[in-house]
Amino acid sequence: MKDAAETAVTTRREDAVEPVSGAQARSAKTTTPPRVVIVGAGFGGLHAARALGDAPVQVTVIDRNNYHLFQPLLYQVATASLSPADITAPIRHVLRKQKNTEVLMGEVTGVDVQQQHVLMGDQAIPYDYLILATGARDSYFGHNEWARFAPGLKSIQEATKLRSQILRAFEQAEEEPDEEKRQTLLTFVLIGAGPTGVEMAGAIAGLAHQTLKGEFHRIDPADARIILVEALPRILLAFPEGLARKAKQALNHMGVEVRTHSPVEDVTDEGVIIGGKLLPAQTVIWTAGVAASPAGAWLGVETDRAGRVFVSSDVSIPGHPDVFVIGDTAHFEQDGKPLPGVAPVAIQQGKYVAQVIADRVAGKEVSKPFHYFDKGNMATIGRLHGIVSIGKLQFAGVLAWFLWLVLHLYFLIGFRNRLIVMLLWFWNYTTLQPGARLITADRT
Amino acid sequence: MKDAAETAVTTRREDAVEPVSGAQARSAKTTTPPRVVIVGAGFGGLHAARALGDAPVQVTVIDRNNYHLFQPLLYQVATASLSPADITAPIRHVLRKQKNTEVLMGEVTGVDVQQQHVLMGDQAIPYDYLILATGARDSYFGHNEWARFAPGLKSIQEATKLRSQILRAFEQAEEEPDEEKRQTLLTFVLIGAGPTGVEMAGAIAGLAHQTLKGEFHRIDPADARIILVEALPRILLAFPEGLARKAKQALNHMGVEVRTHSPVEDVTDEGVIIGGKLLPAQTVIWTAGVAASPAGAWLGVETDRAGRVFVSSDVSIPGHPDVFVIGDTAHFEQDGKPLPGVAPVAIQQGKYVAQVIADRVAGKEVSKPFHYFDKGNMATIGRLHGIVSIGKLQFAGVLAWFLWLVLHLYFLIGFRNRLIVMLLWFWNYTTLQPGARLITADRT
Repeated sequence: MKDAAETAVTTRREDAVEPVSGAQARSAKTTTPPRVVIVGAGFGGLHAARALGDAPVQVTVIDRNNYHLFQPLLYQVATASLSPADITAPIRHVLRKQKNTEVLMGEVTGVDVQQQHVLMGDQAIPYDYLILATGARDSYFGHNEWARFAPGLKSIQEATKLRSQILRAFEQAEEEPDEEKRQTLLTFVLIGAGPTGVEMAGAIAGLAHQTLKGEFHRIDPADARIILVEALPRILLAFPEGLARKAKQALNHMGVEVRTHSPVEDVTDEGVIIGGKLLPAQTVIWTAGVAASPAGAWLGVETDRAGRVFVSSDVSIPGHPDVFVIGDTAHFEQDGKPLPGVAPVAIQQGKYVAQVIADRVAGKEVSKPFHYFDKGNMATIGRLHGIVSIGKLQFAGVLAWFLWLVLHLYFLIGFRNRLIVMLLWFWNYTTLQPGARLITADRT
Repeated sequence: MKDAAETAVTTRREDAVEPVSGAQARSAKTTTPPRVVIVGAGFGGLHAARALGDAPVQVTVIDRNNYHLFQPLLYQVATASLSPADITAPIRHVLRKQKNTEVLMGEVTGVDVQQQHVLMGDQAIPYDYLILATGARDSYFGHNEWARFAPGLKSIQEATKLRSQILRAFEQAEEEPDEEKRQTLLTFVLIGAGPTGVEMAGAIAGLAHQTLKGEFHRIDPADARIILVEALPRILLAFPEGLARKAKQALNHMGVEVRTHSPVEDVTDEGVIIGGKLLPAQTVIWTAGVAASPAGAWLGVETDRAGRVFVSSDVSIPGHPDVFVIGDTAHFEQDGKPLPGVAPVAIQQGKYVAQVIADRVAGKEVSKPFHYFDKGNMATIGRLHGIVSIGKLQFAGVLAWFLWLVLHLYFLIGFRNRLIVMLLWFWNYTTLQPGARLITADRT
């Protein structure tokens, strides 16, 4: 019985790599299975690739890095809690068991939608179906000159550089004889009070008040000022107002100053200008806004103000049913507004698009348009405090924090990472001594 | 009873920070306790600082980094097994309980032995006793132009850069259509078959044959050539010949080519020239030799050919009994030859010098000259194989490998690091999937 079942599975697999009769004209043209190229191995791209693992297609995943990055925990690398290896997984390793999938490390430079080619410099990778899952980058709202003074938090390199900058500020303060300069060195401004700004502010407060306590002779690290600046009337706009209020109380309790109604007018090497006044700060971190990747420009299609590509109900672009744009780079309207740039949207779109492609290759008609199922929203504020919003269920405090931990562990890619991060969190939260306190980047 | 004991301890401590009567003229001059400046927080400097924790002196530890680096495991960072945080510990944190010790992060630029100042740019740090523990750097034997093509392995930055280079070579090979170029990309040459060269070669072989197995579509990572090149007639000169032979067999068994009697004549961007012939290789790693730090030049004293400062029997420099040079930067002769540049020498010298200073401050006569107690030598060759030489006790194999693991865990600084490294090793050696496979450095 068992052998028969195994044989059946094998046969099915062998069938699978043959072109399926009745498939679309395009795949019938070729003698090889249809080629699906996925650009970007973030949440969207990786989940699309995984969902295509058993489909009768050839999958090529292209990413500029050799690893998938679990971005929601990037702020913990920037604040010395975790190491880069703990929140990344080699793409090749994640997809190693998919015999129909190959992985290329490289920088995509454009797309030729007429010839159906993805361009990487002078290399052209042909596709039958294309999934662009190229994510987002920091947006300075037309003030790119601020990037120099207020780095964002999008990549491992930015995170380790920020970690060096934050830790070095305390080292420099220890050696600074001038009182005023010392205070500037110990001032950390976060621009933008979304989840990243809130989580980052809490983590820096933890460093200053707990981790570094008693380790300096001339300064008291607790003298650090951590200021979370927000242009809007309140923090955490994606959360209900009650939870945002609780988060603000928790931040204040941790020693974080929250300044709402405070649009930033300028960022210089001296600090931040708000209301015409300079707020002197050595470290300014940009957590305010993102723009889409340049996928819209590659395709030559219309985008919204944030650079996101308008997509149809099946997440393909108008006029090119073989090109899909998913995740942070897509503008998908639901209930009259675009979906937010969060991991669950990218994951659900990735899986959906994989199904659309598999259906088309199998000659099935695709009927159901994409619909995002919002499972809720959560954030952590320092140690032992979190907020959770799942439909009508809303709560704050230690239970929300714990739920945040469990779900982030669950969604981390790779069993090793889950194990190590669980252990490190246990260590960090009981000893208050996160272990990745390295200054490795050169002074900027 | 308990309170009385605590009071006694406190009193003793308070006594301790007062200048001790009968101390040297120099400390009697000042009203504050004698100032001990330690430059470098490697094995020697850190152990000296720790040993002075209860002495009636003011200790200042200066290092260019904010962390102590456990250098014997640096090759495991370069080969994706461990993260930088796992083999480092913040100096400040390690010494936080020593009330008499402060830590400065900065680059020492010189020493004024007349004025008794350590110079850091335009800053001058006064000392009564100076311990220079500034370690070693790569030496290209007069061929500094090779450094560009054959990086060494001395710092965290070099290790992560090397990790990127090694992993990227496989990625590039996957995309290289030309057979010959592909083989060049997959050729890794290690120059110098000391413990670092041997351990590194074994680890790269592990990557190629085990870790990356089955993850590429166009290349077989096992086609990688790993060549360990040595000018001398045999590898591992610091070990008995029998063990070196066994190590060589183990390397061959793992697929490492060992070429003794092979002095390197040139290193270029194409590879390595040996015996007038080019050995084409994309990745060349320098594990051949080290030179001392520039401490000799700072002091303006005589050094040996490797730049090491000649020190007296109490590890101070001739004519300056208040200046000590320890570890890799010291030339200390014992049994007719200089001590090797290994961690145990630095540690023992650090502790010894701390005792000499404590004795002098207490007005005691120091009689015993420094004597290095050689506890033995060990190295690991890939997974499950090691060599150990402790006096007449010599053995190779899995037991030696296990002893290596246990002792390296024991000597790691910080309980967190021991715990994490133990767990990661268990993971790595059972799954063959080390988890730090990130390409983070830019293409060089």
